[in-house]
Amino acid sequence: MKLYDFSLAPNPRRVRMFLAEKGIEVPMVQVNTREREQFSDWFQEINPRGTVPVLELDDGTRISESVAICRYFEVVHPEPPLMGRGATDSAVVEMWNRRAELEGMAAVGEVLRNTLPMFEDRAVAGVRGGVPQLAALAERGRASFGRFLDVLENRLIDTPFIAGQAFTIADITAFAAIDTALRVEMTVPQSCPNVLRWQSEIANRPSATA
Amino acid sequence: MKLYDFSLAPNPRRVRMFLAEKGIEVPMVQVNTREREQFSDWFQEINPRGTVPVLELDDGTRISESVAICRYFEVVHPEPPLMGRGATDSAVVEMWNRRAELEGMAAVGEVLRNTLPMFEDRAVAGVRGGVPQLAALAERGRASFGRFLDVLENRLIDTPFIAGQAFTIADITAFAAIDTALRVEMTVPQSCPNVLRWQSEIANRPSATA
Repeated sequence: MKLYDFSLAPNPRRVRMFLAEKGIEVPMVQVNTREREQFSDWFQEINPRGTVPVLELDDGTRISESVAICRYFEVVHPEPPLMGRGATDSAVVEMWNRRAELEGMAAVGEVLRNTLPMFEDRAVAGVRGGVPQLAALAERGRASFGRFLDVLENRLIDTPFIAGQAFTIADITAFAAIDTALRVEMTVPQSCPNVLRWQSEIANRPSATA
Repeated sequence: MKLYDFSLAPNPRRVRMFLAEKGIEVPMVQVNTREREQFSDWFQEINPRGTVPVLELDDGTRISESVAICRYFEVVHPEPPLMGRGATDSAVVEMWNRRAELEGMAAVGEVLRNTLPMFEDRAVAGVRGGVPQLAALAERGRASFGRFLDVLENRLIDTPFIAGQAFTIADITAFAAIDTALRVEMTVPQSCPNVLRWQSEIANRPSATA
């Protein structure tokens, strides 16, 4: 088994945090996406989509998509549960993880991909070129990220963690999104004290440096 | 238990197909998003995000997000499995469902939300206004959808269903995406014979009319 990873990319980090929380060690292979290594011949054979992370199992099965990789480890290594346990809890965790991803991480991604010079002409992940950046979409992403922080603030008034009483994959996704947002100068404002409290707690977990 | 649904919206349809495949009947409440009922006072109490579907359990728990709702039913009613069984299979299904959603449904959504007059000034789901449509993003969505069909075609050369040998939630998501694409005149081209074969098979399942 091996995990194709890149230490500077936001999505592989989600998987690394997940593994650290479970105490699982997996051999890693770095794919330097800042040097376009995801488009190299060797990695195109691993994942033609050109994204990391990818988990390669011993039987040759290759799994892309961060949450799908986490799902694999959740089943083979259920403790501690990070994706919920039982029907209601699993659904609540999945709901919040999706919100953290679709409203948080996706908004940050819209800003990054449509502003950073390294993504010029390839504003959609996995595409080699021909997709120009849209300044208006970056602006929309900034507004979406602000709304996401408001949702989180409202949620974290009532619960210590995003999905409820326990740390889960939803915290990992939201934390990674907020941390990635720093790259485009988006920070949690003082008007979100509960998000700041939660963010500081997550940052103190050993997995935060994974 | 009840499901807040709207019969003309793409995402609630995914849940209805999922339930039909499992033979589960759930009382439905219609929320007419074409008349902005998702922003009404009564529904804002159910789901402040203003999206359907929402599953309300007897203990009062409310679950938004289509896939999270499906997860609930997968756990309480495992037969037939639609989200995989065992670690590898579950991860492979999740990977393909996410690709169908993030590359397929999201691309269709980009086109719809940024072109249809009904979404003028609210091009992001759940937002009441102030988000203008971006013609360039609709165009990008059309290109992304084309790439998604190429991925599907390549996949369906080797397997009868998207995630492998069995019908799963990934087929539901991709089918709903392709069907929704018709609303903005995007169809599967003759150059994708395997997608056309698969699409016709899914359309013949009883769940396709759910």
